[in-house]
Amino acid sequence: MDYAKLADQYKSALLEDVIPFWKQYSIDQEHGGYFTCLNRKGSVFDTDKFVWLQARQVWTFSMLYNRLDQNPKWLEIASHGARFLRQHGLDADGNWFFALDQVGNPLVQPYNIFSDCFAAMAFAQFAIASGDTEAMDLASQTYHNILAREANPKGIYNKSVPGARPLKGFALPMILCNLTLELEHLLAAEVVEAQIDRAIHEVIDVFLDPESLLISENVSLSGGQVDSFEGRLLNPGHAIEAMWFLMEVGQRREDKNLIQRAIDVTLATLDYGWDEEFGGVFYFMDRLGHPPQQLEWDQKLWWVHLETLVALAMGYALTGQRECWVWYQRVHEFTWNHFPDPEFGEWFGYLNRRGEVLLPLKGGKWKGCFHVPRAIYQCWKLFESLDGQA
Amino acid sequence: MDYAKLADQYKSALLEDVIPFWKQYSIDQEHGGYFTCLNRKGSVFDTDKFVWLQARQVWTFSMLYNRLDQNPKWLEIASHGARFLRQHGLDADGNWFFALDQVGNPLVQPYNIFSDCFAAMAFAQFAIASGDTEAMDLASQTYHNILAREANPKGIYNKSVPGARPLKGFALPMILCNLTLELEHLLAAEVVEAQIDRAIHEVIDVFLDPESLLISENVSLSGGQVDSFEGRLLNPGHAIEAMWFLMEVGQRREDKNLIQRAIDVTLATLDYGWDEEFGGVFYFMDRLGHPPQQLEWDQKLWWVHLETLVALAMGYALTGQRECWVWYQRVHEFTWNHFPDPEFGEWFGYLNRRGEVLLPLKGGKWKGCFHVPRAIYQCWKLFESLDGQA
Repeated sequence: MDYAKLADQYKSALLEDVIPFWKQYSIDQEHGGYFTCLNRKGSVFDTDKFVWLQARQVWTFSMLYNRLDQNPKWLEIASHGARFLRQHGLDADGNWFFALDQVGNPLVQPYNIFSDCFAAMAFAQFAIASGDTEAMDLASQTYHNILAREANPKGIYNKSVPGARPLKGFALPMILCNLTLELEHLLAAEVVEAQIDRAIHEVIDVFLDPESLLISENVSLSGGQVDSFEGRLLNPGHAIEAMWFLMEVGQRREDKNLIQRAIDVTLATLDYGWDEEFGGVFYFMDRLGHPPQQLEWDQKLWWVHLETLVALAMGYALTGQRECWVWYQRVHEFTWNHFPDPEFGEWFGYLNRRGEVLLPLKGGKWKGCFHVPRAIYQCWKLFESLDGQA
Repeated sequence: MDYAKLADQYKSALLEDVIPFWKQYSIDQEHGGYFTCLNRKGSVFDTDKFVWLQARQVWTFSMLYNRLDQNPKWLEIASHGARFLRQHGLDADGNWFFALDQVGNPLVQPYNIFSDCFAAMAFAQFAIASGDTEAMDLASQTYHNILAREANPKGIYNKSVPGARPLKGFALPMILCNLTLELEHLLAAEVVEAQIDRAIHEVIDVFLDPESLLISENVSLSGGQVDSFEGRLLNPGHAIEAMWFLMEVGQRREDKNLIQRAIDVTLATLDYGWDEEFGGVFYFMDRLGHPPQQLEWDQKLWWVHLETLVALAMGYALTGQRECWVWYQRVHEFTWNHFPDPEFGEWFGYLNRRGEVLLPLKGGKWKGCFHVPRAIYQCWKLFESLDGQA
């Protein structure tokens, strides 16, 4: 097991391929912010700006500046997006719009609380990089606004009839776990510990089925499983991403049981979610094996595979458990054989079940400069640490 | 060209396969209404009741009773669903909920105006079958409520920022064209003519691009094309379905130009939307050839192909144009080879690009007892008329 070679593979993908791609093609010099709708070669095919992706790119360049290299160009790119978001992203009540046009006019209302989550993450990381105290305040205000909106995240855009089969979703507690650690330097210590306790409880005691070790995307308010389309829905990549969030918490708290639980869930989810016929992890499944509603259920998505590599590399680095390594190799092979674009750089996002390119884009409404560089950075550092241990 | 054989093929599919399937598996004897989430063999895998599909099944059995055979069993099935919808489907303001649970409790608010469209269609057709004047009133009230809501069909659930790039969608004018004819017996003659005039104008002068002959799913309020994901979106099956609605109007008004225009658009849409590699019509496309947002864009859906068969058979029956027949045969071959389930009956709904079954269901949240029997009935009658002419 040549960890150094793996570390190098990730390092050069990050620094010689992925970051240069976004640096070259995504900056909107005219109106600020980033283009994210980039075709295979990097040309812009749509100029709308989605707050999720604007914020995530601010986060990525700030994070690399903070953790990897204080490259002034990276800080400049982060500032470029932070400025645009600050000027145009917020409504009068301090909620983040979902989409803006190229110039920054709001297009889609703040119906989606994850815009706020990624904005908080962005400004918290950017505040460290820039020392900008306003960015710090904005991150902290946004975080507390998320907690205030948590009971009804969709607000007036909620289409469920009140009281009729109320469900809660896995995404928010899962993101809050990661977000709280991201904002640790801005939050009171007791808020951090309380929010992490709550996130662990929600993930492990509420959304996780202790028998199957599968995580439901939606459960009843009292935490029970529900036999409906939403209640049966599994999103294996989402569950696995949450598991490395928990492994980080476990590491921080020196909680070996939590780390082991997260590994067990990762492996069980892969057993259920792996496509034995064509390889890769399915996007959506039904926990009872019924047809899911999502027509894209059998597709192979970039972020699912990258987050899985992180979880497996982290589980392996933390415990040396053999199954993590066996699965890592299998997922590595599929991922590296199918997603990177050797011809024009960066990674494809959307493959069909057979692993063929479904959409040739490098970025769009949901894919930006985030999962690819974040996961690649993490895998690089994990294999570097494994190499150091060896 | 053996039209009689084709007519027979459709007739036996309708009467010996499709209708028996829904008759046998969809009736909820316990709580009323219909199950529509049926797996390959007809077993119920989810008991929620979606107003679109409840209404469409009421319409189908009423229509068959009215036009084909006054079979008391068919009227009983229609009544069964009409009763459930009347008891549970409406909110206090006369809007139709989107989804109900098995017993009839509302689950999802009336955010979707097409629930109202299909309810109006259902009760108008059921009123003819049953002579029920309350059903007649309900259809007419619902129709006028749709017209009142038309300017802002999503109401409070509209997530667009007011005034920011306002768009209007093709679906509503297109459905109103068909719905107005369906409700003709309940509406004042001047309403019928005015609404049909308006629908023709919207489809032909507003949504249709006169150069490419392609129909955009969304245009600006002033009717211009918009270069955004929504503004570039094409839904070939949707455009083609609208074309046979227009051919029916053309027939009724003895307007040969309108019929010819509808045929030209059908053929141009097939030229653009046909998958030369694997056959079949794509589900979504981008009119500038950019990657569409819809991950399911390359899938082959049952209703797209059935509505295309209707448009081509109708165009051919009305004009004898050779291209209609050439295309009919190509689409017929793909459709009949891929969608019917010879083993357990009825038709698959969702195939992947290669024409392989993607979801083995016979019904779900969006597929019920509607497109398959409606289109098969129409093709049967069209080939019967062609056989009579021959």
